[in-house]
Amino acid sequence: MKNILILGGDGFCGWPTALHFSNLGHNVSIIDNLSRRKIDVELGVESLTPISSIETRLETWERISGKQIPFYYLDLSIEYDRLLTIIKKNKFDVIIHFAEQRAAPYSMKNSHSKRYTVSNNINATHNILCAIVESGLDIHLIHLGSMGVYGYGTANMEIPEGYLDVCFGEASSTVTKEILYPPSPGSIYHMTKTQDAQMFAYYSQNDNLRITDLHQGIVWGTITAETKLHENLINRFDYDGDYGTVLNRFLMQSAIGHPLTVHGTGLQTRAFIHITDTLKCFEIAINNPPRKGDKVKIFNQMTETFRVRDLANIISEQTESEVLYMPNPRKEDSENDLYVSNKCFLDLGLNPTLISTEVFPEITEIASKYSSRCNKKYILAKSYWSDIERQNANNETY
Amino acid sequence: MKNILILGGDGFCGWPTALHFSNLGHNVSIIDNLSRRKIDVELGVESLTPISSIETRLETWERISGKQIPFYYLDLSIEYDRLLTIIKKNKFDVIIHFAEQRAAPYSMKNSHSKRYTVSNNINATHNILCAIVESGLDIHLIHLGSMGVYGYGTANMEIPEGYLDVCFGEASSTVTKEILYPPSPGSIYHMTKTQDAQMFAYYSQNDNLRITDLHQGIVWGTITAETKLHENLINRFDYDGDYGTVLNRFLMQSAIGHPLTVHGTGLQTRAFIHITDTLKCFEIAINNPPRKGDKVKIFNQMTETFRVRDLANIISEQTESEVLYMPNPRKEDSENDLYVSNKCFLDLGLNPTLISTEVFPEITEIASKYSSRCNKKYILAKSYWSDIERQNANNETY
Repeated sequence: MKNILILGGDGFCGWPTALHFSNLGHNVSIIDNLSRRKIDVELGVESLTPISSIETRLETWERISGKQIPFYYLDLSIEYDRLLTIIKKNKFDVIIHFAEQRAAPYSMKNSHSKRYTVSNNINATHNILCAIVESGLDIHLIHLGSMGVYGYGTANMEIPEGYLDVCFGEASSTVTKEILYPPSPGSIYHMTKTQDAQMFAYYSQNDNLRITDLHQGIVWGTITAETKLHENLINRFDYDGDYGTVLNRFLMQSAIGHPLTVHGTGLQTRAFIHITDTLKCFEIAINNPPRKGDKVKIFNQMTETFRVRDLANIISEQTESEVLYMPNPRKEDSENDLYVSNKCFLDLGLNPTLISTEVFPEITEIASKYSSRCNKKYILAKSYWSDIERQNANNETY
Repeated sequence: MKNILILGGDGFCGWPTALHFSNLGHNVSIIDNLSRRKIDVELGVESLTPISSIETRLETWERISGKQIPFYYLDLSIEYDRLLTIIKKNKFDVIIHFAEQRAAPYSMKNSHSKRYTVSNNINATHNILCAIVESGLDIHLIHLGSMGVYGYGTANMEIPEGYLDVCFGEASSTVTKEILYPPSPGSIYHMTKTQDAQMFAYYSQNDNLRITDLHQGIVWGTITAETKLHENLINRFDYDGDYGTVLNRFLMQSAIGHPLTVHGTGLQTRAFIHITDTLKCFEIAINNPPRKGDKVKIFNQMTETFRVRDLANIISEQTESEVLYMPNPRKEDSENDLYVSNKCFLDLGLNPTLISTEVFPEITEIASKYSSRCNKKYILAKSYWSDIERQNANNETY
């Protein structure tokens, strides 16, 4: 049984993770500044599922499970002293860090959202690292990274787990060295993850912190064993153009009779993972910490890859939804292959839930049940990577 | 004649740069939040030279040269809207960015200084990039980076200018690619420069910004053609354990009869540049901007390398000062070679001022003239990289 602090424990991944580890018998605490809910307010949208307040969530969980999860309303990017006090008092064994602005489109929306993403993500991550050092405790920090730090894949090579062996130098004196995979972020959001990686490498080396960085693919699904125990425990389900992720969005669109919207060619290949596998991965990561003095442990937290167009076609065939190709708001390769190693998690026992029509009904059921809560005008993506993409979109009408 | 904005234009490099370009006939403006002066207040030290207030500096410059330099007291890491307004109104051609906390020891001093360095440097740099995009202007951004982003050198290879050709992959399908030189920062301060580099690469690629990043070595000297025109224009000269850099510190120590303090073995090799060459390099950088769409242009802004021990011995022989070896407060290799390419600047006409006993008297004269302003208790370095170095220092007494 471990003392586990979950940063961002009210969010889409954080909330089911908190319940899961509480259910497994760990002492779980949550820190969250509820910024994800506040961004909903800012954007004028809501989770498709009617999520309860964090207070109601936690009261319900205690009633059902008998387990308390202390909650601290705290802004990690600012309130350093409170964070340090909480860490020292509770002597956590593990800190899981979800507390970052996590939508690429939102991070590209405007100057405010770009600046918020950088300031929030970098300061939060750095404050956590700094506080762990100052606490003097031997805490294992597990961070939710992103597959997006690698940039777009190619057919030429499999993306390794975090590190890359390279050679360089003159033929007469070639050097072979392991380096952090050269980052190539595709948005301000992804850029902050590459900056996080710099901080992890530094603190791991200078202060011997034990750090695991999980480069996660796109999460799909919404329900876990614990969130389905009570309506008040329901997880959020984002469908809007900024926070809705591709597979969940297609299933929601088909449920409400909206065309499946594919940006660009649809020949972009993405990495995916089911939300229940996210929980299993964190379990594995907690049980396999790096030793003190080890380099940062990096796992690729994904289970399969799909071309966006193929996903749309699978769902279209099943539901007879129309597939609508739209200008791409992102600046990205119109087409890419993607081969990813996820050997670390597989070797440690992950048994993936793969994308298949059998798993869709659960999501479609959720989407249908709450379809009346959908505000259709927020479905389309309207955050453009630059003026070029904005103009491309304006030149076509739908 | 260009419109040039100098961020951090009240500082050790910023002030002589502002005067230099004003003298050359450019329209120069300065933004500074005077944070370097405030850190002096925090640390209880002062520049060895009695620097005038920024207001007096600028009044004096106008009286002498007839040229006005508008000054904006502004915190770049916070006041985004004012920054954007100033940029749009003045339509700058070039922005030179010195506005970062720039001492490695200060960045390692305590949680506050670590957090300040990260928050100030990252948010300032990001706000500038964001504001240039939002302004819609075609501005050339020139940033003062650091040689420290490369990590410690080796005898095996010359450090290239920012980029490295590497090969990787299976023998059957080896890929050759140019990447940003894999960073290996030696302090929180240097880490922020590697994070800056991520932002430059991203904004250059996504928004076609024209960016030059100058990886500067340790600056020595203090006087330039313009700062010596009047006592009120004098440049700062730092001698304290946090901000004093090695060669200036040795010359000051010899001037006041203090032993020359070498940390560790003194077999660490460092890169150096004279302050007048810093000015020439900026001139060259302004006249050779990258084209729109080019990758970030990176120069190594240094002219020679020296082992710290050798520098101490040169000065010791000349002045009969004692050399005192002390425990190293830094976590670093006890010994390193360093070979650096600076071909870009040499090819564009830089004619370096090299370290030699002929150039020392000017610095020694300044150090002697103001030696009564030196508070000896601030000379020794007392910012430790971790508890290990702190304990090593405490186990020995001087």
